[in-house]
Formats: sequence, C-alpha cells, structure tokens
Amino acid sequence: MFHHSSKLQYEVRVDSPDPVFAKYLQQAIGGVEGEIRVAMQYMFQAMGARGDKRFRDMLMMTATEEFSHIEFLGHAVALNLEGAPLSQQEAAAEDSVVGAIMGGMNPRHVLSSGLAAMPVNANGVPFDMSHIYATGNIAADMLANATAESAGRVLASRLYNMTDDKGMKDMLSFLIARDTMHQQQWLAVIEELGGIEAALPVPNSTPEEHEAMEHSYYFLNTSLDEPTPKGVWTDNRATMDGRSTYTARDKVEPEGQVPELGKARKGSGAQKEQM
Amino acid sequence: MFHHSSKLQYEVRVDSPDPVFAKYLQQAIGGVEGEIRVAMQYMFQAMGARGDKRFRDMLMMTATEEFSHIEFLGHAVALNLEGAPLSQQEAAAEDSVVGAIMGGMNPRHVLSSGLAAMPVNANGVPFDMSHIYATGNIAADMLANATAESAGRVLASRLYNMTDDKGMKDMLSFLIARDTMHQQQWLAVIEELGGIEAALPVPNSTPEEHEAMEHSYYFLNTSLDEPTPKGVWTDNRATMDGRSTYTARDKVEPEGQVPELGKARKGSGAQKEQM
Amino acid sequence: MFHHSSKLQYEVRVDSPDPVFAKYLQQAIGGVEGEIRVAMQYMFQAMGARGDKRFRDMLMMTATEEFSHIEFLGHAVALNLEGAPLSQQEAAAEDSVVGAIMGGMNPRHVLSSGLAAMPVNANGVPFDMSHIYATGNIAADMLANATAESAGRVLASRLYNMTDDKGMKDMLSFLIARDTMHQQQWLAVIEELGGIEAALPVPNSTPEEHEAMEHSYYFLNTSLDEPTPKGVWTDNRATMDGRSTYTARDKVEPEGQVPELGKARKGSGAQKEQM
Amino acid sequence: MFHHSSKLQYEVRVDSPDPVFAKYLQQAIGGVEGEIRVAMQYMFQAMGARGDKRFRDMLMMTATEEFSHIEFLGHAVALNLEGAPLSQQEAAAEDSVVGAIMGGMNPRHVLSSGLAAMPVNANGVPFDMSHIYATGNIAADMLANATAESAGRVLASRLYNMTDDKGMKDMLSFLIARDTMHQQQWLAVIEELGGIEAALPVPNSTPEEHEAMEHSYYFLNTSLDEPTPKGVWTDNRATMDGRSTYTARDKVEPEGQVPELGKARKGSGAQKEQM
Amino acid sequence: MFHHSSKLQYEVRVDSPDPVFAKYLQQAIGGVEGEIRVAMQYMFQAMGARGDKRFRDMLMMTATEEFSHIEFLGHAVALNLEGAPLSQQEAAAEDSVVGAIMGGMNPRHVLSSGLAAMPVNANGVPFDMSHIYATGNIAADMLANATAESAGRVLASRLYNMTDDKGMKDMLSFLIARDTMHQQQWLAVIEELGGIEAALPVPNSTPEEHEAMEHSYYFLNTSLDEPTPKGVWTDNRATMDGRSTYTARDKVEPEGQVPELGKARKGSGAQKEQM
Amino acid sequence: MFHHSSKLQYEVRVDSPDPVFAKYLQQAIGGVEGEIRVAMQYMFQAMGARGDKRFRDMLMMTATEEFSHIEFLGHAVALNLEGAPLSQQEAAAEDSVVGAIMGGMNPRHVLSSGLAAMPVNANGVPFDMSHIYATGNIAADMLANATAESAGRVLASRLYNMTDDKGMKDMLSFLIARDTMHQQQWLAVIEELGGIEAALPVPNSTPEEHEAMEHSYYFLNTSLDEPTPKGVWTDNRATMDGRSTYTARDKVEPEGQVPELGKARKGSGAQKEQM
Repeated sequence: MFHHSSKLQYEVRVDSPDPVFAKYLQQAIGGVEGEIRVAMQYMFQAMGARGDKRFRDMLMMTATEEFSHIEFLGHAVALNLEGAPLSQQEAAAEDSVVGAIMGGMNPRHVLSSGLAAMPVNANGVPFDMSHIYATGNIAADMLANATAESAGRVLASRLYNMTDDKGMKDMLSFLIARDTMHQQQWLAVIEELGGIEAALPVPNSTPEEHEAMEHSYYFLNTSLDEPTPKGVWTDNRATMDGRSTYTARDKVEPEGQVPELGKARKGSGAQKEQM
Repeated sequence: MFHHSSKLQYEVRVDSPDPVFAKYLQQAIGGVEGEIRVAMQYMFQAMGARGDKRFRDMLMMTATEEFSHIEFLGHAVALNLEGAPLSQQEAAAEDSVVGAIMGGMNPRHVLSSGLAAMPVNANGVPFDMSHIYATGNIAADMLANATAESAGRVLASRLYNMTDDKGMKDMLSFLIARDTMHQQQWLAVIEELGGIEAALPVPNSTPEEHEAMEHSYYFLNTSLDEPTPKGVWTDNRATMDGRSTYTARDKVEPEGQVPELGKARKGSGAQKEQM
Repeated sequence: MFHHSSKLQYEVRVDSPDPVFAKYLQQAIGGVEGEIRVAMQYMFQAMGARGDKRFRDMLMMTATEEFSHIEFLGHAVALNLEGAPLSQQEAAAEDSVVGAIMGGMNPRHVLSSGLAAMPVNANGVPFDMSHIYATGNIAADMLANATAESAGRVLASRLYNMTDDKGMKDMLSFLIARDTMHQQQWLAVIEELGGIEAALPVPNSTPEEHEAMEHSYYFLNTSLDEPTPKGVWTDNRATMDGRSTYTARDKVEPEGQVPELGKARKGSGAQKEQM
Repeated sequence: MFHHSSKLQYEVRVDSPDPVFAKYLQQAIGGVEGEIRVAMQYMFQAMGARGDKRFRDMLMMTATEEFSHIEFLGHAVALNLEGAPLSQQEAAAEDSVVGAIMGGMNPRHVLSSGLAAMPVNANGVPFDMSHIYATGNIAADMLANATAESAGRVLASRLYNMTDDKGMKDMLSFLIARDTMHQQQWLAVIEELGGIEAALPVPNSTPEEHEAMEHSYYFLNTSLDEPTPKGVWTDNRATMDGRSTYTARDKVEPEGQVPELGKARKGSGAQKEQM
Repeated sequence: MFHHSSKLQYEVRVDSPDPVFAKYLQQAIGGVEGEIRVAMQYMFQAMGARGDKRFRDMLMMTATEEFSHIEFLGHAVALNLEGAPLSQQEAAAEDSVVGAIMGGMNPRHVLSSGLAAMPVNANGVPFDMSHIYATGNIAADMLANATAESAGRVLASRLYNMTDDKGMKDMLSFLIARDTMHQQQWLAVIEELGGIEAALPVPNSTPEEHEAMEHSYYFLNTSLDEPTPKGVWTDNRATMDGRSTYTARDKVEPEGQVPELGKARKGSGAQKEQM
Repeated sequence: MFHHSSKLQYEVRVDSPDPVFAKYLQQAIGGVEGEIRVAMQYMFQAMGARGDKRFRDMLMMTATEEFSHIEFLGHAVALNLEGAPLSQQEAAAEDSVVGAIMGGMNPRHVLSSGLAAMPVNANGVPFDMSHIYATGNIAADMLANATAESAGRVLASRLYNMTDDKGMKDMLSFLIARDTMHQQQWLAVIEELGGIEAALPVPNSTPEEHEAMEHSYYFLNTSLDEPTPKGVWTDNRATMDGRSTYTARDKVEPEGQVPELGKARKGSGAQKEQM
C-alpha cells in the first residue's frame, strides 16, 4: 500500500522560467526514457515477482522512489511555465519576433493543461504502457531496468547541458546521481544471482534440448562486401556463458526453402486470378 | 544497401496447422519482444552509430539477419492458417463446439490479411516504432539489445513449450539458439569497450561535476515497514563502476519543499475561484 | 514524496483461479475505466492545481489510494493465472475441448508477463496516457473525476456479476464501495465551490463578451423528422447556471457560407488540374 | 441516416492567416477536448442507448451538430494556412529570422495535407477512438459529456485569448456559446432522471449487497503528514446520494496481506533461481 | 452542415444474435477497412479540396453516406449482443463448455459498452485517425479512396461468408453493393481528369527537372538469385504515363558512399570511447 | 533471406546542415507516406502472396529496395543534425534569437537519439504498423501500393520545394524518380491481370448473388441543397467494370427502420431508469 508526504523528494527551483525548456523537460516525465516508465515498470515487475523476496522488495521500493521523481519533475515543468504567453501580445512582449515563443513551446501546455506538466514526451506524444517491460524472468527484467536507467541518465545529462538555469542544473544533477545508483543496483541483482555467466543465456532455465546449439555461438556476417568485425565476439574466445566459444560465419547460405503458399482458397476474398 | 535471396534463412515446416497458435506466434513478429523490433532497432542504431566502425557493421549485419527472421516467421504464421475456418460451417466441422475456433483465433487473420501474417502482436495490437531504442550511446544501446534478446529468448522458449508441432519446435529451437548468440555478442561489445566497470555509469562521459555524487551510491528504502534488502547492493561493498561503495538509507526524509503554484492567472481558463 | 508499506490495502483471495477472468479483470487495471487512469489523473491534476490548497491535497491523497488499488488488482490477476496452461497438453487436461482455454485467455499473460498482470485492458491494448485529463480548471477536473469513478463503478459492478468466485466478489465489493465515495467526494468539491450553478458554465471565468450569448441557451434540433425532445432542457425553464432560460430551435438553417478554397498554389504538390 | 447542406453552420472568416495559430486550432478538431471526440462520443452513445427514447434522440441530434463543428473548424484551419510558406525562401520573406515560421508551424500542414486541416491535435498527434466514452449507463455518459463540454469550453476560451484575429474571435465566441448549452443540456438529463441524488452512486442499479458499504463513505487520508482537508466531504454531513454521512479516516492501516506468489513454475520461462 | 433523419439508411435484422460475430463485425466499423475511416477520410479530403468544386461535393456527399453506414452497423453489433452472457452462469447455460463464449467474445462489449458497438476493430483496438489519408492531391486521394473501398469490399465479402444469419447476409450484401459503386466513382474521377495516363506520375505537377529521370523507369531487381519477373512492367513496353518505356536492372550496384558519421561530439551524451 | 552491402543505394550529401529540415525529412522515413511503411507493406504482402509467383517476387524485390531508402534517408537526417545545438549557448550562437532553433527542431533529435534519425514522422509521432495494408487480395494490394507511392511522391516533391540545399535536392530527385517507377509497376500488375475492368469490383471473386446489385451502380446524393455533380460517374455511361451503367439518386429516403434497443437488462450496469 502507498502513502505520501507533502514535501518533494528533492528541492525544485527555477531561476528563469522557460516554456521551451518545459517542453524539453517533458521527455523526463513521459518519454520512453522517463520516470513514468520506470515507476510503472518496477511496480509491475514487483507485482509479478516470483522467487527471492528481496528482489520484489527492491523493485517496489524503487518504484516508490520513481513516483516521487515524477512529482518533482512535474513541479519543475509547471515552474518553467510560469509567465508563459497566453496570447500573441504576451508572446510579442517577451520576444521581438512574434511567434518565436508560441511556435517553440508545446501548445498544449497552454491549451490543455493550463500551464502544468502532462504525461507526454517532448513531442507531446502521450506515454503508453506498452513500454512497461516485465517478463517474469528476473534476469531479463534486471537488464531491462539497467537499460532504462542508462537511457534515463543519458537523457538527464543532455537536459543538463541544454539549460543555463542553476536551479534546473541542480535538480538534474540529483537525477543523474540517482540514475547512477539505479544502474548499479539492478546489475548488482544479477551479481547476486551468480553473475552474467550464470545468468546467460536468458532464460537459463531453457533445457539445452530445446535449443539448436549448433546455431548458438556464431556471429552471422550477412554483408556481401564487409569482413566480419573482429573482437571479443569472434576468434574462438570463450563465450560469456562459459558454454562454448565464439565463432563467425562469413559465407551465408540460406538453409530454408523457397516459401510458397500456392493458390488462394475459394471464399477467401482474393482475386479470381489468385485461385 | 539491402539485397535478398529467395530462400528462407531457416526451413519452416508445420505438421498440423493451428490458427490459435498462429495468433500466439504473432508475438514473435510484432510483439515488443519480436523480430520487427530488433531488426529496426539495430538498423536505427547502426544509422546513428558514431565512433568505432566495427559496432556499426555488427549492428547492420544483425539487423539484416533479423529481417530474415521476420520473413520465416511470417511464413510460419501463414502455414498455421492453412485450412483455418472461413465460415461458421467450417468452424463447426473442425470442432464440436461451434465458435471455439472462431472465438479463439485472431479474427483479422481471416478478415484483414486473408490467412497471412500481420505486423501485430498476439493480441492483434500493431507494433509501433516507439519501441525502437537507439540513444546514440553505445553502452546504453548494447544493454537495450541484450535486453531485447533476453525477452526474445524468453518468448521463444514459451512458444516452444506451447506447441506440440514438431516443425514449429524445430524452428523455435533455431530462434532460441540465435537469441543466445545475440545476447552474447551485444554484451561482448561492452567487454570490448573495457567491461561493465569502464562503461558505468552510462553515459561515462558525464562530467562528475554534473552529478550530485552524495546521492549516487545509496539504496533508498522507501518502505515504512520493510528493512532494506541486503545483498551486493549494500554493506559498503565496492560499486560496480569502481568509484565508490554501496550504502543504504533506511530513514527517508523528503529534502524538497511543499510544492505550491499559487493562484491561477487571469485569462488562463481556470475557474474564478482559483484566481 | 511517496512511501510504501508491504501489505495490500485490501485482502485478495482467489478461490478458483480462472485465466479468462484474469483477462477480464485487466480492464480494471489498464482500461480507460481502470486504476492506472485515475491514479495518474489525480496525480497530474494535483501537480497542476492552483488556488485552494485543500483540493490539491485531496487529489494527491486519493491518487495515492488508487496506486494501492493497482497493486491489489495486480495481485488478483496473478492469482487468477496460477495454474494457467503453459502448453497445449495442460490446456487439454483442464478442458475437454483443446484450445478453449488457450483461445480464451490473453496469450500475453503467458508469453509476455509469465503469469502476471500487465498494464493493458481486457483486449490486451496497453493503457495510454492521453486519457489523463487535467485541465487546470478545477470544475472541469472534478467532473472528469466523477465521470471516471462512474465508469469505474459500472465496470466493477459488471465484473462482480461476471464471476462466481467468492474472493473476487469480496474484493470487487470493496472497489464498488470506494468508487461510491470517490464519486461523492469530487462532486462535493463542486458543492464547496458554490455548487453547479456557480460552477457553470465551465470555465466560469470566461468574460461574457467572449461568448456569442444569443447561441448559448437553445437546444439545436438537427433532425429532419423528429420533434425536439422535451424536458428540463426546453420550454423556457431556468438554465442550470441561472443566467437564462432553455429554448429550442427546430428549424435549422446554416448561418455560414459555402466553403471555398479556390485553386491550389503552384508548388503545393496538388495535381495540375487543381491549379 | 445523415444528410448534408452545403453551407457551414457558422460563418468562418480569417482576417490575417496565421499558420502557427492553425496548429493551435487543430486541438479543437483532433484534441481530446475537440469536436471529433464529442461528435463520435454522442453518436456511439446514441447507438447504444437503452431506455427513454428522448435521450437517444438528443444524443444523435447533438452528434449531428458536432459534425458540423468539425466542418467549419476544418475550414478555419485551411484559411489560416493560406499563404503559409512552401519553401525556405517564402519563410524568409515573411519573417526576418529564417525558419521561425517553418519551425513553429506543423510541418505536416504542408507535407501531408497540402495546407488543410487534419484529424490531429496541436502536437500533430492523431485522435484515437479510445476517447469515445459510451458505457451504456446514461448517468455515467451524461457526466462524461458534461466533462467533455467543460474541457471543450476551457479550450475554446484559451484559443480565444490566443488570437488577435477578429474573424477567429467571432467563430470561437460561437463555439464558447454552444459549449455552454451542451454543458447545460447533458446535466439537465440527470435532472430529468431525478437529479444527482437519485443518480448516485452510478450505477444506481448495483444492489447494495454487492457493495462493502462500510467502505463507501469515508475519505481516506493517505498522507503521512497532512491533516484531512475539511469541507463538504467530511464532518458527518449528509452524502450527496442521501444514503449516509461523510466521514474520514486519518490513520491508514493496510487491511490486506503481504502479497506472495511463491516460486516460478517449471516451463514458465523464469530464471532457474526463481524456481 | 449536417442533418439527420431517424430511420437507418438500410434495414438491419439479426435472426440469431451471436456475440462472437459482433466482435467480427466491429472490423467494419472501427477497422482500417471500416466505415469510420472512409467517412472521416472523405470529409477531411472535402474540407481540403482545391480546384474543381464537383469533387468536393462528391466527397462530402459520400462522407455523409458513410456516416449512415456506421450508424446501421452499430445497430447490427448491438443486436448481435442481445442476450450475450453477463455472467458465467449465463455463459454456461448457452454452451456446454463454460467459458467458450466468454472467452470468444470481446470482453469490452460487456464491460465497457454494456452490449453496444464501439469504435474499435475486431481485436478491440481503437481506430486512430492517422489512417485518414488526405493529401490535397486529388489523384492521390482518389487512389486512396479506391483502395479503401477495395479493402472494404474484401472485408464485407469475408464477413458475408463468415455468418449464417440471413439478416446479416442481407445487410452485408448492401454494403458489398455500395462498395462496388464507391470503387467505381473514385476511379471515375481520375477518368474525368484525363485518365491514368494524364494523372501519372502523381503529382503530375512536379517539374521534370525535379526528377532524376534516368531512375524513373527501371524495375530494380534486388534479388541475388531470382531473375526479374517479366510482364507489363518490363521489356521496353510503353509506361503507363506515356513518357517512357519500362526497363529492368538486374545487376544492382550501390551508387552511394559508405556512410560515416565520425566521432561523437563532446556533450552529446555518448560514451567517451565514441568521442 | 536478406543481405547487405556497405554502400548506400544513392549518394547523400548535405551542403548546409539544417536541424529544422531534419525534422521535416523524418516524414519520409516514419510518416504514413514514408519508407518504413512501403518497405514493410511490400514485405508483408509478399509473405501472404498467393497465386502468380511473379507478384510475390516483385513485392519482395521492391521491399528490399525500400529498406535501402530508409537507410540513405536515415543518413540524410543525421547529416542535417551535424552541428545542431546541444545547449542554449550553442543555439544562441547560431541565431540572434535564442530559442528559435531549439524551439523549431525536434527536441528528441538531441534528447533521445543523440543527433540521429528516428522511426518517427515530422511531428515526432512514431510510425505504427497498423498502416501496413496487406489484404491477401492482389488488386486491393496493388491499389494500396500505388496510393502509397503517390502520397510518397507528393511528399518528396514538397520536401524538394522546402529546401535550398543542393545535396538534398539531388537525393530527393532520386526518390521522386523511384516513386514514379513504383507507381507504374504496381498499376502494371493490374494491367497484367486484365486491367481495371477485369479487376473491378475488388474482390472480383465475390459471387454476384452476395451483392444487392440494385444498389451497386448509383451515386447517392445525400445533400439537401446541392444537385448531383455530373461526370463520368453519372448519366448512364458504362461503369468501369463493364457490368452496368452509372446512375444517380437525388432524392434520398432512408430504407431502414428507426433503431430501437428497448430496455436495458438487469445486471447490465445501466441506471435503474433505463431498465
């Protein structure tokens, strides 16, 4: 069960409100790299977690933290919209080129939300929940979470660069820091489970007889004119799951048939000529 | 530039066509764990790849392979739809309960595609390209790819369990194998770049002065009644990026202010009582 | 800031797990009438609330409650999926018609979530955040909330009827009760603001000179063959905002011009014949 | 059955075409507060209306009016796009900063529609029909409609403020007026059915034994540090449905269990460590 | 401006209500081949039509007809849902396998709409307005419309085959007939404009100097092992626009460069190793 | 199976990078008129093609070409983003009005992709696969393809006009040329099948007894005040399928009943007053 306290998790200060930056900041709320995504992803993973109870607890605890991030980011967007132009006159007053601000901000920050945050990204596209990845497999989920926190920290770093506002830089430096920890903690779960070698291939519960193992360890070069790139993934080095060695196939020959569906059935809605 | 050869990458055989399994199989084509996603994700990552040319090449080569996976899975769906009922009579003939098949299959496999695969998932929801994750950061992208291949191999394993059809099991065992390799190869890129320690925190190019480092290494317990779960992520162990040690904060106090937006502006469309 | 305690807000018990009912129950989580919607809607309204602080507090408190509803409903879905078939053999064992269960359940409850709840509706369509209505106008928002709770209680009542499971009926009777209160409380906010008469027309801050008042109080009968339906909204009764009386217009004549855009411009991509 | 006459319902005049305002105006066509939404919502409610025939007639009549609103708004968008720049030279000619107009307008107004309206909102996001709320419950539907007209009138008022164009202000004043009436008429239907007290709780047909009435009339304070806000919704005042009195619960204790799903099943695609 | 008359355009009769067929029928309302699509497509094309006024009139007239099709199809869905099970007992009573009906119908036909049509397709996916194709180019639009009516007639024919119900077959035979005419009429517009030869290439207003004509008339064989398929499109026959002759290129050599983006910029959020 | 060669199909050169044009160019990648759409559409049509093998081959060959178009357009977007501002200072340096560039470009080109192409349109809306039209009917599919190539060539022509950049104009002139051929080739398939007359009505396999032929050949004038537009589609001229002559109906009378659903069922979640 959830509870709330009235103060924000972290202080939000905007020295110079900027409605265009408000639009950019939305990516951290409703973007695929944003906080709604991680909050909901961790919560749904927690609700489906089977096995070691500690991971469920971690997931729910961090989900709860992420809901608090949505909250202070929402406040940051609203503060950046203070004073945003409600009319062409106001837009003109703030800028010598009429329309530069009205053209550059998210129109719906005035029209739909009345100068407040929305659950949308920097293009105004609403977040949709198909981005909540929760597979029921703890290793797949931890990788998904480390991925989300990586993209999240990339985003926070880019937003940090984008603004000159001291208050915003301070808030973003907090987000950058928390994303650092969240990357660490999800990868640490994999360590706790024996590390990458033990976790791979995900799922590690698939019986080997379900796998055409002769196809499991070669890099497939599908290029007609490029040599196989060399590296850790080639040259008979040990694979990361400890089961085999990496090889490569340069000369690709299809192994399957030429597909053929024959004639269309009567009554199937095709043209007569297909039947 | 792309080229094509007429044979499938792998042989597809369906011993007993099953329109309900065709619906399930769609998840591997148009689901978030499916082949359209990885094909397009690798292609867009390749198109935005900066730095070491080998990674761009790997991405484009594997993107090309994944397009071939879409192709043979599409054939598998079509073969499972051979003989699917085009009318209630046909449905009744196949099953003693009229409608069990018509109710259980994807209606659009008859109505929209005429007994062929579609770019949709097992619920008939079309794939959308917001799931193509390509950040321009090679580490974030490699984690995203390992994640996608993990969810993909979980899916392929579940589909393998779901069916009794030998041909389908054979094809799925090939997919399971290729997903094994793809997990390996993307994680191997991180190894090539110095390993997880060097890669973290992602992006590793963010200057430390952009980060509120005092918040970077504690696990935040937001629960009112649960102790902090113990593990690799606690107890002063070294963090995975080698920069610090893990700690935890049990007693959470908000650090920010009570948010307050004051009165609504005149002309902002609020109720008078808010102004 | 948010916090969490480990127990659910309400006890969840499933006497006879039913994967088809699990699919139905998803509507209460990820449907437009569901809990993700109200939780997020109240939270975003709170974050944009201007004026009387009490309403912001109410919104955040009830948002917090709704997150707890997602949590116990998520558990209810998972419990209904216990024992769901992972293979055609398991499906056959449970039901004499092979495929009836596999056809009737949400495939992604096995394939994607591994027997756990997802943020999708009963058709498997993911919730999307465009349904979060938060206008910055307290009256419009309260109506939106009463609407959401009405549709929510309709849904809970229908789900109650759909199931025979005692545990599920008990849980749903709790949801029905809370939706009762939530309807009451949002409408009570309008009372607190002076009642419907004072609130209308929403927004009540629009100056009358912005309104073509001669068009504000007639019901427009656009039918060619039906008389105007009579009722509270006709016959010179007082309007609900106390500003006028209701009338009706039976004979509709367009007041505008025949629209005409003329020729297409050169270079606009039209056909030559349009230019 | 529908019919059409060639003139617009209301005259549309644009004194100074403005492609940025055309982008804003799209919200009134394809936004969630817009005319496609209400037109389709009333039509689908009408098609599912059971009981008193007058309400079905009202719904279809007003749906028909709303289709006419789409029509004149579409013309208004096209007129605002007259003269919009088709090339960088044209953009430069109109404004001293090259790109200010090309950057601020909706690119698809040139690229996709050739200077005409589209069924999208002010961000260019297409309207989707999940926003058509039609529950089959007349009270829930009337609240939904009053909500839609409230958000619609808020939007029209904001657009009115945004523009200096006299023709546009005139057209918007007509929309503001019609939204006034539509708010009135949908709420009047609830009056006709006995008023809010009789309508609540929605649905009023749910038997009381389906409701855990001990949870139906308290406001739940989920905050750890804020007192319950006082008002109409507290202090033993009579509830709006006349069935009880309002109370509040300040001290929240979860009533449910700690959720626990146990081990993952063999064959479910989880990691071995979860089994 | 739109008007309405109370009778349906065509009589709707359902002899044996069938909730599974109701689900199928939804494709004709809210599918990409359905009536919402064509109604809205013709209306938006009409609103953007420039040039010959006759085409705008035709578009609006047929848009109006299509709204009437939505209306009677909506009634057909509702009639098919009469008697649909509202509980497991009712489902069991109708069918010896509990759940066969509950599993096969669209759950939201009970849960969300209360036994009425919805603006969704046969998978329950809501229609979205991105499918409204209106380019401002009359030839492109006419092809889009002939396409839509072709897919629509394919769908209607498949639905006709799917059902045994005489009333439904009668209604569908009307739809099949109207789709016949609508195909004819949109292609007739192209005839009126001089026929396919004059219309091609679309847009026919693009100056030839904007086109790399040396690439305009060869079929590109991108296959490594298949010969170029022979037909009207090869062998120096005259092209359909009368400007040239068809040829083919068998041996494909890329004409462009190897793409190369160089190093990532400082501050761009990439990994250090990319810079 | 697919293969790749390292060079682009066509040379891409950007003389003056322009981040606002990069946003516009996205329409050609991820718009409904763009290359992802045609690539995937032809591939799915190929995978479902029944009947004459040549058409499957053509479809797969051209799908393969379109994947190559995505590739060079992706490069063009990235090249236009070279030097795009990563901070407000950089934006200010490039333009005297701070924010004109930051406001006009797609924020996600910095925030999400790190200066690279994305699978989105010019509004930043991701492409979704519901736009892949593949019916299993060869004539319907060929019309859909000619439509897509028409909208595509309209788009390419508009983009050509929009830019001053010589490199971009050159690349677009190639796209314009290829779209010319693709229009030709898909229509040529219909010629090969006997031409439009033989193909119509689509599907031509629907038995005449499934069609209410008395409704198949009149244009329905649904206007109350406009005469029927005259043209190829009226006046007893021969219809394009050679089966009949065109007529028109001016005076429209509904042929159906007044729809009526009666009372709501008990337990259906309606209000009591509806029952």
